[in-house]
Amino acid sequence: MNTSMVRYILGHVLKLEALLLIFPCIVAGIYREKGGIYFLCTALLCCLIGFVLSGKKPKQTTIYLKEGCLITALSWIVLSLFGALPFVFSGEIPSFTDALFEVISGFTTTGASILSNVEGLSYCMLFWRSFTHWIGGMGVLVFLLAVIPMSGGSHINLMRAESPGPSVGKLVPKLRHTARILYIIYFGMTVVETILLLFGGIPFFDAITTAFGTAGTGGFGIKNDSITSYSPYIQWVVTIFMLLFGINFNAYYLLFFGSIRQALKVEEVKYYFIIVFTSVAIIFANILKTCAGTFDAITKASFQVASIITTTGFSTADFDTWPELSKTILVMLMFCGACAGSTGGGIKVSRFVIVIKNLGKELHSYIHPKSIRKVKFEGKPVDHDVVRSINVYFTTFLTIFVISVLLVSLEGYDFATNFTSVLATMNNIGPGLSLVGPTQNFAFFSPLTKYVLMFDMLAGRLELFPMLILFHPSIWKEFFHIADKHIRG
Amino acid sequence: MNTSMVRYILGHVLKLEALLLIFPCIVAGIYREKGGIYFLCTALLCCLIGFVLSGKKPKQTTIYLKEGCLITALSWIVLSLFGALPFVFSGEIPSFTDALFEVISGFTTTGASILSNVEGLSYCMLFWRSFTHWIGGMGVLVFLLAVIPMSGGSHINLMRAESPGPSVGKLVPKLRHTARILYIIYFGMTVVETILLLFGGIPFFDAITTAFGTAGTGGFGIKNDSITSYSPYIQWVVTIFMLLFGINFNAYYLLFFGSIRQALKVEEVKYYFIIVFTSVAIIFANILKTCAGTFDAITKASFQVASIITTTGFSTADFDTWPELSKTILVMLMFCGACAGSTGGGIKVSRFVIVIKNLGKELHSYIHPKSIRKVKFEGKPVDHDVVRSINVYFTTFLTIFVISVLLVSLEGYDFATNFTSVLATMNNIGPGLSLVGPTQNFAFFSPLTKYVLMFDMLAGRLELFPMLILFHPSIWKEFFHIADKHIRG
Repeated sequence: MNTSMVRYILGHVLKLEALLLIFPCIVAGIYREKGGIYFLCTALLCCLIGFVLSGKKPKQTTIYLKEGCLITALSWIVLSLFGALPFVFSGEIPSFTDALFEVISGFTTTGASILSNVEGLSYCMLFWRSFTHWIGGMGVLVFLLAVIPMSGGSHINLMRAESPGPSVGKLVPKLRHTARILYIIYFGMTVVETILLLFGGIPFFDAITTAFGTAGTGGFGIKNDSITSYSPYIQWVVTIFMLLFGINFNAYYLLFFGSIRQALKVEEVKYYFIIVFTSVAIIFANILKTCAGTFDAITKASFQVASIITTTGFSTADFDTWPELSKTILVMLMFCGACAGSTGGGIKVSRFVIVIKNLGKELHSYIHPKSIRKVKFEGKPVDHDVVRSINVYFTTFLTIFVISVLLVSLEGYDFATNFTSVLATMNNIGPGLSLVGPTQNFAFFSPLTKYVLMFDMLAGRLELFPMLILFHPSIWKEFFHIADKHIRG
Repeated sequence: MNTSMVRYILGHVLKLEALLLIFPCIVAGIYREKGGIYFLCTALLCCLIGFVLSGKKPKQTTIYLKEGCLITALSWIVLSLFGALPFVFSGEIPSFTDALFEVISGFTTTGASILSNVEGLSYCMLFWRSFTHWIGGMGVLVFLLAVIPMSGGSHINLMRAESPGPSVGKLVPKLRHTARILYIIYFGMTVVETILLLFGGIPFFDAITTAFGTAGTGGFGIKNDSITSYSPYIQWVVTIFMLLFGINFNAYYLLFFGSIRQALKVEEVKYYFIIVFTSVAIIFANILKTCAGTFDAITKASFQVASIITTTGFSTADFDTWPELSKTILVMLMFCGACAGSTGGGIKVSRFVIVIKNLGKELHSYIHPKSIRKVKFEGKPVDHDVVRSINVYFTTFLTIFVISVLLVSLEGYDFATNFTSVLATMNNIGPGLSLVGPTQNFAFFSPLTKYVLMFDMLAGRLELFPMLILFHPSIWKEFFHIADKHIRG
């Protein structure tokens, strides 16, 4: 176990957080809020610890998958622990558990909140809340890879642990360039969305925080009613950008650096849009009677489908009151999630496509036992190992899901609440149904349940294994054994 | 495709059904009910068609897995179609859809009923209802294999399609002897249970129908309140026998023909009892306050855990009113199911054990990438193909589950009703929660939902693939192509 590398990268992560905390300070300056001081204090603390940890560059910089997973899990936990401090220091969210819940929900782009009155927060706190979505959307380690020169080719293991989806492809041979290209696309699209939102006549602060929430597919709004009070124009801009941020970023790379034809051929994106359009059509027909006309119904149906499949979690309607069929479709979309390689959460479209294709193959082999057919995806035969890892992912997902529901059910709320609170956090969506529906919040849960859901948010964002590895005793045995040797020797 | 063999075996199945229909005739004779005449008519009809179909013995008797699946699926459908006729003819269940639902629920040992007043049925109808559980429990094709001499070694494909569990083992080299041993154990245990129930002072008719319901892990009772009104002695006998019928029958074989030590070593049975005892302990503590004392609580908790994990579905308490934790545990047990190679339904303990072990292996390989560790089960390394088929089973299960819930949700009932009605039928349990809870029934659903649930019951009992294969176009193309050639040539 390369503990020095774990320490070194954690140090860098803290220094990066110090830098990021400057932005809410600036916001506090603009609005003349005294909350800025808490961000400054936290930034200094992060900076200090960060420099101590990353002071000595390790001699051996190679990291394997286990270090990649461990670093990723610890980075996200450390980021959240420090990110929660300004809320606690300022007293705007006095309970540390609640503040931590809110920040983890932010970084993991979940958007589940413990606040009943969002509008009561100061501007700098609202900005930080939305900004965490933007940081967490593309990933903080991907950012580090983009800006910090690290030698050795083994850092793909960091990106592998943090990036969503069944397999990580480097867009270009150099990992650092891949990370940069990803962030450039991400940044560019956020800017375009902010400008389009400004055309809708909303204040700049509203535009940029909404853009952060959309880009990271997070879902924190700055209004108590989420996006409901904005004009249909704003709602459509958000709908379209939610869908765009749910697309595999490989497709954008191909669009900008390859050809449109190549970009249109990305199979996952095709299936993603098929699912979106089918769901919108069914829900539109299902809710038409309860809406104020066709345009209203199509706006609401499109917005909610986009919001749920991309796991953003913005809402323009209380879908908990919709007919059961629409609600069931939304629950299915919660499982489905967006494309791999996007900022969206969930199980991912590609995993489902491969699993369904594999099922077809299996059925085929019952009828033609001698045929050898390989499952194809994106024009290439799917590697046996990928199918295996997807199957393992599914069973792991179900195991964590079941244990979480069991723990949450200790509180005695109804089945729909327990089931969808785990579903909405593990898939990084935000709102669920019943007591955690779009007009409700997560404040009423006990601390135990909140910590279970925090774990689920992190596990969902980091695709399960990095968080699970923290429970493996041999990791800690190895970790402390080496740290021990280090101190003595 | 060996269509002659399909026809030939279906003929035998119908002749067997004619024979089985004689039993309710005898019951009608004893109680001097005129309902017997409808069973006689149906028996004659089955006999006639059976002799026509099985008149000519096929030259080629080899059947492959696809014929095995097709024969199994069609046999169960044909059995149910004819089995429903007495209910319709007699007018005791006037709607054919309802009668078919009741009989499929019987044969698949589900125990979900559309009857609100079970006590209104005549004795012969009640007997037939419970008897279908007993027939379906061990499987009708296994019975055929035991009694009808069939040449060729390929009939393992029939048993493979009908038997529950991830892999089919022949207990003894000859398949026919295996089938016989299974039926002898099954018959013997049913007789012992009936005798023990008679000691409890209930009428012979009650004893034998309850024994049928337990043996097949079915769950049809002959009282409106299921088992609630019987004495605690009866309830404990039923509890113990439900658990016994949920054990892998391989263990009984080892017990009778091998050694006790070998029988105790069966890993699946060990895990099965661990799950049972843990669940009973938690539910006992959880419901203690609401019960009339410790004995009452332990009786109710044990009964309900045994009833749900073995997918029997008898009830002694309205568990829909229990605390949420207990309800959630019961929902988890609904997914779990009993041991493979028992008469119980569900996903099966062994599948979960292998999946969890595989998950552990995967986590281990993250930490020690070079280690090659194989998953072991029952003392042997698990074949790669078994793991793969279990994974495919899980994804297939989820696919059918999701589509079914979506179709059921068209009716607009609440989430718990939709979710648990599919869960309770697909895992062959019977009662679910909310509107399909233990004191309710399935009568209120529309015909569409009823047919969806009938499909789920058959798919669950036959472990998915035999039913899915019916939807594969190439099966029918081949079938009709050959039938066509047969007629012309």
